[in-house]
Amino acid sequence: MSEAVKVIVALGGNALQEGKGPATAEAQLEVVKRTCEYLADINAAGYEIAVVHGNGPQVGRIILASETAKNVTPAMPFDVCSAMSQGYIGYHIQQGLQEALRKRGRGDLPVVTLVTQVAVDADDPAFQNPTKPIGPFYTEEEAKELARTKGYTVKEDAGRGWRRVVASPIPKKIVELDTVKRLWDSSIVITCGGGGIPVVKNAEGAWEGTAAVIDKDHAASLLARDLNADVLLILTEVEKVSLNFRKPDQKDLDHMTADEARRYIAEGHFAPGSMLPKVKAAVDFAVSAPGRRAIITSLYKAAAALKGETGTVIENN
Amino acid sequence: MSEAVKVIVALGGNALQEGKGPATAEAQLEVVKRTCEYLADINAAGYEIAVVHGNGPQVGRIILASETAKNVTPAMPFDVCSAMSQGYIGYHIQQGLQEALRKRGRGDLPVVTLVTQVAVDADDPAFQNPTKPIGPFYTEEEAKELARTKGYTVKEDAGRGWRRVVASPIPKKIVELDTVKRLWDSSIVITCGGGGIPVVKNAEGAWEGTAAVIDKDHAASLLARDLNADVLLILTEVEKVSLNFRKPDQKDLDHMTADEARRYIAEGHFAPGSMLPKVKAAVDFAVSAPGRRAIITSLYKAAAALKGETGTVIENN
Repeated sequence: MSEAVKVIVALGGNALQEGKGPATAEAQLEVVKRTCEYLADINAAGYEIAVVHGNGPQVGRIILASETAKNVTPAMPFDVCSAMSQGYIGYHIQQGLQEALRKRGRGDLPVVTLVTQVAVDADDPAFQNPTKPIGPFYTEEEAKELARTKGYTVKEDAGRGWRRVVASPIPKKIVELDTVKRLWDSSIVITCGGGGIPVVKNAEGAWEGTAAVIDKDHAASLLARDLNADVLLILTEVEKVSLNFRKPDQKDLDHMTADEARRYIAEGHFAPGSMLPKVKAAVDFAVSAPGRRAIITSLYKAAAALKGETGTVIENN
Repeated sequence: MSEAVKVIVALGGNALQEGKGPATAEAQLEVVKRTCEYLADINAAGYEIAVVHGNGPQVGRIILASETAKNVTPAMPFDVCSAMSQGYIGYHIQQGLQEALRKRGRGDLPVVTLVTQVAVDADDPAFQNPTKPIGPFYTEEEAKELARTKGYTVKEDAGRGWRRVVASPIPKKIVELDTVKRLWDSSIVITCGGGGIPVVKNAEGAWEGTAAVIDKDHAASLLARDLNADVLLILTEVEKVSLNFRKPDQKDLDHMTADEARRYIAEGHFAPGSMLPKVKAAVDFAVSAPGRRAIITSLYKAAAALKGETGTVIENN
């Protein structure tokens, strides 16, 4: 076993596509290639990394295409769309990262995507209150028809129309964990893409796909704990976590203890669906064993943050 | 290293979906689960296996959905659709095979899908004469517009309309081979799905996606050679390869030497796009080193064929 610092990198949506322009595969691949330059720099600096990526916009478009074409070919269920997004995004990251490593004389380092199922509890309370909108907008009539015929939960979305909503349960088990363990000290493994393909255990004890969105930062945190990683590196839009974000008294944080983080959470500093799950995922990792450190920063500052020069560090004490 | 017989299994389309009824994901998963019972039986009989699967109908429907929805979300290029099909089919096989193994007391054996790029030569002569139809049917006007605006090669398809056609070049290199090697003696690896995501080396020496359909039996044959497998097991609709197939004088074959196979090929016994690539892929493996054996049979007879009881065996001598 090597002594290198082992880092789980959680890549946010902005590392995979830009906000403007049509979301063609070609445009996304260019963004992924730029992102991979930063990841390759981290690896070349001596860190061993595994990569967990988001998939929100991509799986959204897969569902949109599938639903739009449903009269010519059957629409695919959510778990299959999630699996497709892992293939698609993983392929792009493989290609981008293999090339970025090759340019740094590290072309022999394998980069590989594992199609990964992540198990959640069928009785996770999140299933009682689905909150994550997925797929296209519907009229009220269409939405209610889908609720009746397919059992979807549908909600009106901020005046823009109706959408299906699914649960966002807590990840409990990475089904393919043994293979990640086997590979990750000698390869860069891309795993748990989009938080993982959501599965539950059925009555026979077999894994079965379900419609749910697993938060990718929570999945990365679970992976980091299971792999006994040193660092959970959560990459997002901002260089540091802030209190009073975007208010006149905004205060950027260099460091939070787990207790401080919990207090800030209770005080409502972090937005649900945005910084809140990142801070929670960071705390879960930081408190799970001595010496574990989570960092929240931007892609562009990732290397500097690993050296302790910037970012927000979350540690147990 | 174990002494078990090592088998590369090439799964045909009929092992992944049935011809009748709507091709829903749920219906396909049921077919995949039945297929996985046969694969698990082979593994439980002591054979170590890796799995290469076809993807024709599945990638066809992904392209169809993508093209149908192109006015609401950008259509995905062929390489990305291929990557999506690997995620989708790999996930289904993982789930089905994990469960079939668990029922046999082998639940600890990892089953994992690797998103796999397969390189072809940019100057493969197949690129001069594209033959594989992919995606939806177009009117002549639409087809010619696509030829002009996107550079597609389009052909009229047997009176049914116009379609895009792409090349079917020979696979030259499995980009993620090192990882397959690392895993396959302790796991069941699903790799080179659909023949692999087709890539070529660009001017900078980097891998780049291309529009091409790599024959999955040829990819499985390359994999079997690279992994030094004992057996290439090509599973198809029929129990044995036949001469004069479906004619009054049909003769089923128990065995072919490579020379006999080449003579039968020259005599036109095997249909292009059907048995011909299977026999060619089998010969390529059989002649590549002493002791290597290819078998062509049906899924249902696979276990018996491995024991030497049926199927068509292709060996060098």
